[in-house]
Amino acid sequence: MSETREQVLEEIKIQGDLVRKLKAAKEPKEKIDEEVAKLLALKAKLGDEPAQNQKFTLKTPKGTRDYAPQQMMLRQNVLDRIVAVFKKHGGEAIDTPVFELKEVLTGKYGEDSKLIYDLKDQGGEILSLRYDLTVPLARYLAMSKISSIKRYHIAKVYRRDNPAMTRGRYREFYQCDFDIAGSYDPMLPDAECVKIVSEILDTLDIGEYVIKLNHRQLLDGMFEACGVPADKFRSICSAVDKLDKSPWAEVRREMIEEKGLDASTADQIGEYVQLSGGTDLVEKLLADPKLKAVNAAVKGLEGMQLLLKYCGAMGLSNKISFDLSLARGLDYYTGVIYECVLKAEPKILANGATEEQGTVGSVAGGGRYDNLVGMFDPKGKQVPCVGVSIGVERIFSVLEAKASAAGLKPRTNEVEVYVASAHKGLHEKRLSILNDLWNQGVKAEHSYKLNPKLLAQLQHCEEQQIPLAVVFGDSELEKGIVKLREVSSRKEEDIPLAELANEIKKRLRN
Amino acid sequence: MSETREQVLEEIKIQGDLVRKLKAAKEPKEKIDEEVAKLLALKAKLGDEPAQNQKFTLKTPKGTRDYAPQQMMLRQNVLDRIVAVFKKHGGEAIDTPVFELKEVLTGKYGEDSKLIYDLKDQGGEILSLRYDLTVPLARYLAMSKISSIKRYHIAKVYRRDNPAMTRGRYREFYQCDFDIAGSYDPMLPDAECVKIVSEILDTLDIGEYVIKLNHRQLLDGMFEACGVPADKFRSICSAVDKLDKSPWAEVRREMIEEKGLDASTADQIGEYVQLSGGTDLVEKLLADPKLKAVNAAVKGLEGMQLLLKYCGAMGLSNKISFDLSLARGLDYYTGVIYECVLKAEPKILANGATEEQGTVGSVAGGGRYDNLVGMFDPKGKQVPCVGVSIGVERIFSVLEAKASAAGLKPRTNEVEVYVASAHKGLHEKRLSILNDLWNQGVKAEHSYKLNPKLLAQLQHCEEQQIPLAVVFGDSELEKGIVKLREVSSRKEEDIPLAELANEIKKRLRN
Repeated sequence: MSETREQVLEEIKIQGDLVRKLKAAKEPKEKIDEEVAKLLALKAKLGDEPAQNQKFTLKTPKGTRDYAPQQMMLRQNVLDRIVAVFKKHGGEAIDTPVFELKEVLTGKYGEDSKLIYDLKDQGGEILSLRYDLTVPLARYLAMSKISSIKRYHIAKVYRRDNPAMTRGRYREFYQCDFDIAGSYDPMLPDAECVKIVSEILDTLDIGEYVIKLNHRQLLDGMFEACGVPADKFRSICSAVDKLDKSPWAEVRREMIEEKGLDASTADQIGEYVQLSGGTDLVEKLLADPKLKAVNAAVKGLEGMQLLLKYCGAMGLSNKISFDLSLARGLDYYTGVIYECVLKAEPKILANGATEEQGTVGSVAGGGRYDNLVGMFDPKGKQVPCVGVSIGVERIFSVLEAKASAAGLKPRTNEVEVYVASAHKGLHEKRLSILNDLWNQGVKAEHSYKLNPKLLAQLQHCEEQQIPLAVVFGDSELEKGIVKLREVSSRKEEDIPLAELANEIKKRLRN
Repeated sequence: MSETREQVLEEIKIQGDLVRKLKAAKEPKEKIDEEVAKLLALKAKLGDEPAQNQKFTLKTPKGTRDYAPQQMMLRQNVLDRIVAVFKKHGGEAIDTPVFELKEVLTGKYGEDSKLIYDLKDQGGEILSLRYDLTVPLARYLAMSKISSIKRYHIAKVYRRDNPAMTRGRYREFYQCDFDIAGSYDPMLPDAECVKIVSEILDTLDIGEYVIKLNHRQLLDGMFEACGVPADKFRSICSAVDKLDKSPWAEVRREMIEEKGLDASTADQIGEYVQLSGGTDLVEKLLADPKLKAVNAAVKGLEGMQLLLKYCGAMGLSNKISFDLSLARGLDYYTGVIYECVLKAEPKILANGATEEQGTVGSVAGGGRYDNLVGMFDPKGKQVPCVGVSIGVERIFSVLEAKASAAGLKPRTNEVEVYVASAHKGLHEKRLSILNDLWNQGVKAEHSYKLNPKLLAQLQHCEEQQIPLAVVFGDSELEKGIVKLREVSSRKEEDIPLAELANEIKKRLRN
């Protein structure tokens, strides 16, 4: 059922009018570009113009980016360190498709559902890009009838959010998830997740951080104690979640004006959500008359007590904070919730003292979700889960800024030997030397030129920080040798061709 | 502009009628499931039912699959080996977004464009999932103004093709691409790509293979010599490309009936495309009166001559075949084209002799595309490129079948030590021992139970092939020791707690 040419021409006319209107109204360039792109896509449908003559904005889609080799080195290094921690805790890797049946994602993300990318209906199934790795995990566990696993999953997820790319907020971004699925005793897996986040942040060495902890049952109990109707728990929870970005006055306004809460109820919530601390705070709240009367609040507080104790046994006490303002936006959490934020570097004051600068944004989050797998199981069988997700884009941003400030320019390839020829007519000999080196596992390259200048070849080695160069001409070949050059010192030594690969490997080992 | 409830109800009614009609007509189950899924998605829009009560087919989208830990081990192993070869040849990694502006992909894939996945227009840019990694590379090079790079890119691509999953044909699948961009002397980079494919197939050890080689200029010249009009070169080329799946008679019919070729022209093509060989064949064709008269054919043949010579210098002569039936479907190739196919295992005949079984499908392909980057550069600046793409899904399939035939069940995690307690009340002590082991880099886990049975813990170690177990009770703790158990031999030894991590590391080294 493809469109007729007339339909496309009509669409082009309408779209062209829209573009002209936007331009006349001096709308923002980005908005105009988007509509121009649609216009060009329509014109392309006609197939009148050969592809060569297409004119369009040369860019990646909004909120996405390419990774250049330099950035890939950094990214791979970060991901490798994270995987090492996941493996240290017994994690097994899985992967799922980048898209899911749309209905798999429906009803899982609360107010954030509007940020899901849908695929076009091209006939067949209705699909959406994954929004996180947690819902696909739950679908996988139900589908594969797995009742316990420690799995990690490192993959990109997709959110049609407002990007803020300099701060590492993208529409396509990596998540590194570790989740413990299975029926275990309270808070033992939950505490290990805190340990994992702490180990990862320590190994990445990106500065001070604090892991905020809270409990959905405590939040619900607190809402109940303050007089929030049960059907508003989730939407009030979403409002509390905004406290990391908005002041209380704004969140209070949302609760009252948009979500219809009494002012007095909102004010009671306001009292609680400013509290944070440790075991002392848990005990204080367990004695709070309003909370004491609500079963969910007591259960949540007892859970927090246990979690804090276990975190203490793993040396985490000075890295965590029980924080009643932590809510997490997603609908599916049922127990403990986590969020790890980097502290800003302390500011040095005029008098030489330092001043704490608050936090610069979340780098990890997660929590317990005991009912999600059951939503997928045909018989509603539950598999309790708890997990954390590391938001590496922000970590990349921080580390990129650090590397660039330090003026670091690490190599982006691993070439060990460059094969250079001293005069023309030697390209086939280069190939046969390279072939021998490659076959023996040596990382080697040459110029791809028939007749490269020797100086240019040696300069390439120095610029690219290649450690060794093989140099030869007819005079060397006659003697069955080549010169092996140490690029940094420019020292050369004659090596019999038959021993070249071994000599290179020996030198690289040292 | 979201739909009203009435509109959705109307859509549900129409969709419901369609489903009933399909069921009445006993249409294939898959088709019905697809329409039922759409119906459920529509119903979900109403938001009447809580998510818990959703009923739907529990599956991954058509043509996609999950990777379980066992499969991830295999996949990671294969990808690591491929990356090692790419790095041996000086490759640098890049990554690009999973989707591109739709217009980036338009006009690049010829008849295959219909297989591109489009995203829904949710306001903003019009996007499509990437179809390969080559067009995104060209877009990246033009956008970043890079005129030479050896880059590799390992990522998933998306094609709405008919899946054949048992043979490794998916709608979401990995490509592992290595491309050499830059202006170099003829066939030197092109020959290295053949070497790379050969090294990868050798290191993966998946059996005999042949790398077929041809040249687009030769194909065009041959079409011209046979009397094909120039505007039909690409579509006739697409027809020739089907020779690996369809017999000549079928391809001939397509050329004549669908593409309007004279029967005599088709028959002349038929003569050429059955030829394959080596340098001898090139020389024979260079002397062919019809081809000799066409400039493009001579250029293509001279290119092949050079390529075969360079391949010879790298010891590849017995792994390649110059094959005039190789055409490659994609529009953008301009020079050499490659395709690597696995040979089927020889069949053993009743008399004990073996019989060659032909090939079982393509595992790598590629070619030269000198005009693609220029399509993206605002000034049309060209960057000549040549590259290969390894199709790892088929390789995974072959290796999975081999592993399963051999009854292999490798471990899917790397846990080195299990921390077991001999009686109840020791869970906090377990945490503190684990904490110490983790902090010292030992891969360790425990039961997440307050009071696990000792036997169950030790059985877990044996089942999971964990090499070591730490076992302790109050009597050990009083003496400041734990028992370190070698799981396979069940031998236990007392180790002072303070020396535990070092002792474990020492044992794991041996």
